[in-house]
Amino acid sequence: MELLFPFIGYRNDELYVEECAVKDIGNSVGTPVYIYSKAAFEYWFKEFDGAFDEVERITAFAVKSCSNLAILRLLSELGAGADTVSAGEIFRTITAGIPSEKIVFAGVGKREDEMEYALSCGILMFNVESEDELDVLNSVAEKLGKVARIALRVNPDVDPKTHPYISTGLKTSKFGVDIERAYDIYLKAKNLKFVEPVGVHFHIGSQITDVSPFDEAAGKVADLVKVLRDKGIEIEYFDAGGGLGINYKPDEEVPSAKSLAEKIVPYVKELGCKLITEPGRRISGNSGILLTKLLYVKRNDRKTFYIVDAGMNDCMRPSLYNAYHHIVPVVRGDSKEIVDIVGPVCETGDVFAFDRKIGKCKKGDYLAILSAGAYGFTMASNYNSRLRPAEVLVFEDRFSIIRDRDSFGDLIKGEKFFNR
Amino acid sequence: MELLFPFIGYRNDELYVEECAVKDIGNSVGTPVYIYSKAAFEYWFKEFDGAFDEVERITAFAVKSCSNLAILRLLSELGAGADTVSAGEIFRTITAGIPSEKIVFAGVGKREDEMEYALSCGILMFNVESEDELDVLNSVAEKLGKVARIALRVNPDVDPKTHPYISTGLKTSKFGVDIERAYDIYLKAKNLKFVEPVGVHFHIGSQITDVSPFDEAAGKVADLVKVLRDKGIEIEYFDAGGGLGINYKPDEEVPSAKSLAEKIVPYVKELGCKLITEPGRRISGNSGILLTKLLYVKRNDRKTFYIVDAGMNDCMRPSLYNAYHHIVPVVRGDSKEIVDIVGPVCETGDVFAFDRKIGKCKKGDYLAILSAGAYGFTMASNYNSRLRPAEVLVFEDRFSIIRDRDSFGDLIKGEKFFNR
Repeated sequence: MELLFPFIGYRNDELYVEECAVKDIGNSVGTPVYIYSKAAFEYWFKEFDGAFDEVERITAFAVKSCSNLAILRLLSELGAGADTVSAGEIFRTITAGIPSEKIVFAGVGKREDEMEYALSCGILMFNVESEDELDVLNSVAEKLGKVARIALRVNPDVDPKTHPYISTGLKTSKFGVDIERAYDIYLKAKNLKFVEPVGVHFHIGSQITDVSPFDEAAGKVADLVKVLRDKGIEIEYFDAGGGLGINYKPDEEVPSAKSLAEKIVPYVKELGCKLITEPGRRISGNSGILLTKLLYVKRNDRKTFYIVDAGMNDCMRPSLYNAYHHIVPVVRGDSKEIVDIVGPVCETGDVFAFDRKIGKCKKGDYLAILSAGAYGFTMASNYNSRLRPAEVLVFEDRFSIIRDRDSFGDLIKGEKFFNR
Repeated sequence: MELLFPFIGYRNDELYVEECAVKDIGNSVGTPVYIYSKAAFEYWFKEFDGAFDEVERITAFAVKSCSNLAILRLLSELGAGADTVSAGEIFRTITAGIPSEKIVFAGVGKREDEMEYALSCGILMFNVESEDELDVLNSVAEKLGKVARIALRVNPDVDPKTHPYISTGLKTSKFGVDIERAYDIYLKAKNLKFVEPVGVHFHIGSQITDVSPFDEAAGKVADLVKVLRDKGIEIEYFDAGGGLGINYKPDEEVPSAKSLAEKIVPYVKELGCKLITEPGRRISGNSGILLTKLLYVKRNDRKTFYIVDAGMNDCMRPSLYNAYHHIVPVVRGDSKEIVDIVGPVCETGDVFAFDRKIGKCKKGDYLAILSAGAYGFTMASNYNSRLRPAEVLVFEDRFSIIRDRDSFGDLIKGEKFFNR
């Protein structure tokens, strides 16, 4: 097998995920369909989690990257915790079997009902993003007669050098609190009766391919922990958020999880904290592909278009972030051509690739959009009243549907005619 | 009532949709919630449809802009047809009661099963976008023993001067066929046994605020019709697609539907064709708002953030197109401030407005995101495992929920654990 990514590659010029011919899945389940590899999820989870094995830790999978119940259960069995950002994600996580004491709840806009739900589930801690949120959480906890464990999300003002949409640790962003203000807010938290500061949290962005900003950020945050401890605020959890990047091209180099660990672990060891990490894309990104079928080849005097049956509603990243995804024919030949690969949605922006050199395909052929495991299905919509794709999990030479394709009935669920 | 848009405005400094206080809807249904005005839909439909009353016509509402069944039924009762782009949209349209003989089916990536469905529903015609599609449609129709009425979507290569994502009539776009090639393709269509050319279609883009490109496009297409008729191809329907713009600011001027009609109607009269128009946003855009609640006011030394409970998953246009939406407090006072209005989604791009001067609000206040009736709910997703909003239709002093908010159960519908 000639690998493109671990467990995903060509065998006799035909694309396989583990021991499954991708073509067979398309023929059986239809397209578009998200296909995940169980072995790849295990591989990437262990690559990340294992890198931090010198310290006590929770590897909290960022549920927003890929939130299918079967995937969450698989990760749960590997020992994962969960980084969640909504009550819906907590619901998923608990339904899948991840223990509540491994769940953290982040997000700048937590509603009171979400706080109640999280408290009633007994999650590990809230990553609090503002002083106001602290007050709201205290009063919600009081109402429930519980104490909310919290970490404050501090903003180390470090430039992660990634896409502006997914940089989160700058002063001009909505996230976290300035690190200079953190001390005062921790003192306040300490004095609130229904809130208990137990951790510190930072998150500098997503898809980061240079680990040096993590060093800078972790160092600043470790200094804060020391100051807090001097004041009697026991910080037990050091939550190092921010996503390690993946390669979106098969031959691209990205830092290993080990190289990230080398930046963070020394601080954690020195502090004697428990480490929380929040990998999402790093685990799910290259564990999944989006399989699509070529519906029409359309040529005019300036362009050749491959019109495929997946659209921006199924996979938003290329339209939203102008993101690169490697795209390959499922059965490859020798000749290549330069094409625009576009979806069926009625928007010019429904494009997966511009002027891309790709193995020549004909109507009916399958194409695989690679590195689609993260922020793929989770961002899917029913735009154009399209049915969201099925999801399939491959395990060695078998595969199992882990989410049915939407039906017409799903499209109109909850809708009703107007009563005069 | 001091109107911002027809049927939407302030009464004693409180926002109303028709005779309903928006605040009462928020208190009753919760937020975020899309709120539509029945009277506004009627107003905008009649403004558009009425402008073309000199000619026989079908005003085919672009379902992708707003596809709730109650809205489609309302438009159906006003005599609307439907411009659809998927089997799902045809299903919605027919379910809502729009007669199949008023439905056109467009889109660059029609699948065979969608063609079968459309043929079995007996829709008026297919807007065919490529020569290949013609062949596929012919064979699908043959299999069903039916004849597919078609219009060819011709590409008049006119620059509509709108956002590149929603310009559709340029040569470098995936849509339609070059007008120079249309003649040959029509001849081919004429010779196919299960396809019958009955119309011509063009579509130059969306949110167009200068009607002159319509004149140029309609003129080119009318010339084509004459040539085709000389060859015995009877073109009965002149389908003038492309969306007339709306004002996203209350005080902005946009062309009237009448001014558009003046550009198109003369050609249609001369040809003696039936006219099809495809307004979407023009009818739905300013007939709806998105109501949201201010969760937190967050200040740092550089910015003030209003964190609201609607996110990019609920309303994608600001993140996707950097689109402007006017945002107002539901209860207005005198003081103003400059803020970023952001959602709770864990992305820096989850922003509704940057550095926007707005009436000063406090935690718990409602804000209305205006002009959200088009490409609002239809683009919503469950990203971050958030529950898609409810939809409400206002009728005078009453309102009715026309779509329930998603539940946790909806989030995981169709998902299942992996069978070993």
